[in-house]
Amino acid sequence: MSRSLSRRSMLAASGAAAAGAAVLATASLPQSLAAAARSFTDGAHQAGIATAVQDHLVFATFDLTTNSPADLERLLVTWTGAIKALVVGQALAGSGVLEAPPADTGEAAGSPAAGLTVTVGFGPALFEALPALQARRPALLQELPSFPGDQLDPGRSGGAICLQACAQDPIVAFHAVRNLARLGLGTVALRAFQVGTGRTTASGRSEGTPRNLLGFKDGTNNLVGSDQKAMDRYVWVGDETDQAWLRGGTYLVARRIRTHLEVWSSLSLDAQQQVIGRFRASGAPLSGRHEHDAVNLDAVNNLAQPLIAPSAHIRVAAPSLNGGTKILRRGYNFTDGVDPKTGELDAGLFFICFQKNPTTQFVALQARLAANDALSNYTTHTSSALFAIPPAPTPGSAIGAALFS
Amino acid sequence: MSRSLSRRSMLAASGAAAAGAAVLATASLPQSLAAAARSFTDGAHQAGIATAVQDHLVFATFDLTTNSPADLERLLVTWTGAIKALVVGQALAGSGVLEAPPADTGEAAGSPAAGLTVTVGFGPALFEALPALQARRPALLQELPSFPGDQLDPGRSGGAICLQACAQDPIVAFHAVRNLARLGLGTVALRAFQVGTGRTTASGRSEGTPRNLLGFKDGTNNLVGSDQKAMDRYVWVGDETDQAWLRGGTYLVARRIRTHLEVWSSLSLDAQQQVIGRFRASGAPLSGRHEHDAVNLDAVNNLAQPLIAPSAHIRVAAPSLNGGTKILRRGYNFTDGVDPKTGELDAGLFFICFQKNPTTQFVALQARLAANDALSNYTTHTSSALFAIPPAPTPGSAIGAALFS
Repeated sequence: MSRSLSRRSMLAASGAAAAGAAVLATASLPQSLAAAARSFTDGAHQAGIATAVQDHLVFATFDLTTNSPADLERLLVTWTGAIKALVVGQALAGSGVLEAPPADTGEAAGSPAAGLTVTVGFGPALFEALPALQARRPALLQELPSFPGDQLDPGRSGGAICLQACAQDPIVAFHAVRNLARLGLGTVALRAFQVGTGRTTASGRSEGTPRNLLGFKDGTNNLVGSDQKAMDRYVWVGDETDQAWLRGGTYLVARRIRTHLEVWSSLSLDAQQQVIGRFRASGAPLSGRHEHDAVNLDAVNNLAQPLIAPSAHIRVAAPSLNGGTKILRRGYNFTDGVDPKTGELDAGLFFICFQKNPTTQFVALQARLAANDALSNYTTHTSSALFAIPPAPTPGSAIGAALFS
Repeated sequence: MSRSLSRRSMLAASGAAAAGAAVLATASLPQSLAAAARSFTDGAHQAGIATAVQDHLVFATFDLTTNSPADLERLLVTWTGAIKALVVGQALAGSGVLEAPPADTGEAAGSPAAGLTVTVGFGPALFEALPALQARRPALLQELPSFPGDQLDPGRSGGAICLQACAQDPIVAFHAVRNLARLGLGTVALRAFQVGTGRTTASGRSEGTPRNLLGFKDGTNNLVGSDQKAMDRYVWVGDETDQAWLRGGTYLVARRIRTHLEVWSSLSLDAQQQVIGRFRASGAPLSGRHEHDAVNLDAVNNLAQPLIAPSAHIRVAAPSLNGGTKILRRGYNFTDGVDPKTGELDAGLFFICFQKNPTTQFVALQARLAANDALSNYTTHTSSALFAIPPAPTPGSAIGAALFS
C-alpha cells in the first residue's frame, strides 16, 4: 500500500498526462467520496458480485501493452481513484483549461450515479504477459478447457484484464468503461466490449424473476448475493487458495452464449418446457405448481416417466447431481444485430458467473451440461474467459495492490 | 379497407399458421384494445414520430421474399393486429396447446407495456420488388445519394420495410420486433437490426437535454413533437405529395453515424467546442450564455472573429443558412463493441430523422454538412436508408392499407 501511494505521488510529480493527473486529484478528495464506499466495495469484496443485479452491463476485456508490472500497478491506482469518482456520479476532474483535452469524456454529465459498480479482474494472460508476477499466479487461474459444441471467437475470448460495469443507465456503464479504457492507454488495449441488458422495470424484483430470450424465467434457483453463508461457501475465495492476495475475492467466468432463437421459437410449448424442465408461464418446475416449489427430480407421471426429463436443463444442472455445486449467475441478455452469415439474430445470454473454484464448480458443471443438457442443442458458446477477482482493497490502497506487495 | 378485412377472414378461414391466426384472434378484441389508441396511433399519424422519445430503440429492416402484393397486404393486416396488442403489453394470443409453438416468444411476459411504439415504413426496394405497385411509388422515395465521406455497409443500408420500435424497456422493444419478424416469415426476411439507447433517467426531460457520445447536449434546437404547427410545416406530408396514401405520413431517414471517439476525446476542450459551436458543459451556443439562448451567427470577438466558427456544426446546420429547413431528429446512441479492424469502439449515433420532403430537407442539409461541417472529420456514416411512413390507418384498417386500395 505504501508503494502504491508513493507511485501516486511519483506520477503526480512527474507531469503525467492531464487525464491521469486529474484522476489523482479526484482521488485525493476522500470526504466527498466517502459516500462511494457502499458502491465501490461490498464489505471485504468488490462491488458488482453480491450486489443486486442492475439493468445494464458493459463487459470489457483488455490486453496488456506493457511488460512492466510497475505500469500495471500504476494503472490500478489510477483506476481505483477513477472508479471511486465514477460510482458516485462524479466526472473525472481535470484542469478545465480550454487548451487541454477534457479529463472526462462527458457523455454521462448530468446523469445520476445510477447504481454503477465496476469490478476488476485478472486473466491468465496477465501472468503470461508479466513473467515477474508468475509466483503470484493462482494455480486455478488457467484458460478454461474447450467443451463439446464450443465455437469460440478468439477475439471475444480471454484477456489479461476485465472490467464489469453494471448500472441502471446504459450510458453510465458505457461512460465508465470508456473512461477507464482511456486512462489505460499505453498500459492496456481494449480487446472485447460486450453490451448486455437485463429486464428494465422501474420497480425491480417485486415483479418477479426476469425472463431470458428463450421466454423462460431465469435465475429462480440462483444464489442470492445477500445470503452471506452461501456466498462464503460457494463464491468467496477463502484460506484454501494458494495466493493470499486473492482471499476474499472470487473467480469470474464469462461465456457469450448465442441462442438459436428461430429454432427455439419453432418448438412446441411442450418441447420447450421439456428442454428446460419448467413451465414457461409460471416458472414452476414440471414437478410442481409454483415457481419456487422445490425441484423434485424423482417425480413421475402415471406411466412412471420422470416429469423432469433426463436431459432437462434443470436436472442436468441440479446441485444434487453435481456434488452440491452452486454458482452465482449474474448474466445479461445481449442482442448484437443480424449475423451476416446466417441472416439470423446474433442474440442470447452473456453468461457471467462467480465461484470460488472454477475447476470444481463451473468447469465440472459445464462439462456435464455440454454433454447432457437438451438446451445445448439450441445454444452455441461463442466466447470464453476466466478472471481472478481480487477482494476490495484495504482503505487507501488500490484494487489488486496486494498482487504487488 | 373492406379488402383488408376480407383478407383477414380469408386468412383465418384458411387454417393459417398458428401464429398468424393467434394475432387475428387478438385483433378481434377491440374493447380490450381501445386503450391502445394513444400508443398505436398519434391522431392521424403513426406513433413513434411526434411521441416523446423513449429510452430504447430497436430498428429493423427487412427484404421482401415475395413478389405478391397480396402477401404484403396480408402481412400488414397481421402486423397491425399484433402491434395493437404489443403496445398495451399483451402477449400475442395463441391456442396455448402444448403441441403447438407458442404464438408469443415470451421474453416480455410480465413486463409492462413500457411506452412501446412501433412505426412501419416502406423503402424504395419495396417498389422495386413489387412492380405491380409501381404506380403507388412516391416520386421522392428514391435511395439517398452518396455523400462525401460515406462508407456505407450495404447490408445495413436500404431495405424494403422498416420497423422502428421504441420503449422504456429494451426487452419490450426487442420482443416486439422479434415477434413481428417471426410473423413475417415467408413474406419478409430480416436484413438489419440495430439496437440503440438514449439516456435512461427515470425522471426524463426535467433533467435536461440528453448528451451524445461526444459529451455534448444533443437536440437543444430540435423540433418538438408536440408543436403541431411546426410538425405540419416540416414533418407531415400534405397535399403536395403525388401519392394520396402518404398524406399524413412522413419520410424517415436512418443513418448509422460512427463517431471516432478516441480522436475526438484527444481534442482540447476548445477544439471540441469550436467544432460544435457550443459550450460543452452548459450546451449554450458560443455566442451566448445559456443552453436555450438563440444562436447568433453574427457574433464576433474583440478581434472581429466569429464566435461560432465558419465550419462549426451548428452554423452549417443552421436553418437560417439552409433555406429555413428543419427536420425532426429522433436518434439514439449505439455501442456495438470493438471494431476488429481498428481495435476501436464501433459506437456513435444511430441518426433517425423525419421530414415531409427528404430531398429538400435531409439531402440538402447533409450535402452541406458533408462538405463543410467540421464535425464530419470525426464521424463516418456507415449505413443509409429512406422509408416512406404511411399515416395511421383509419379505424378497422391496417397500416399501409391505402397503398393497396
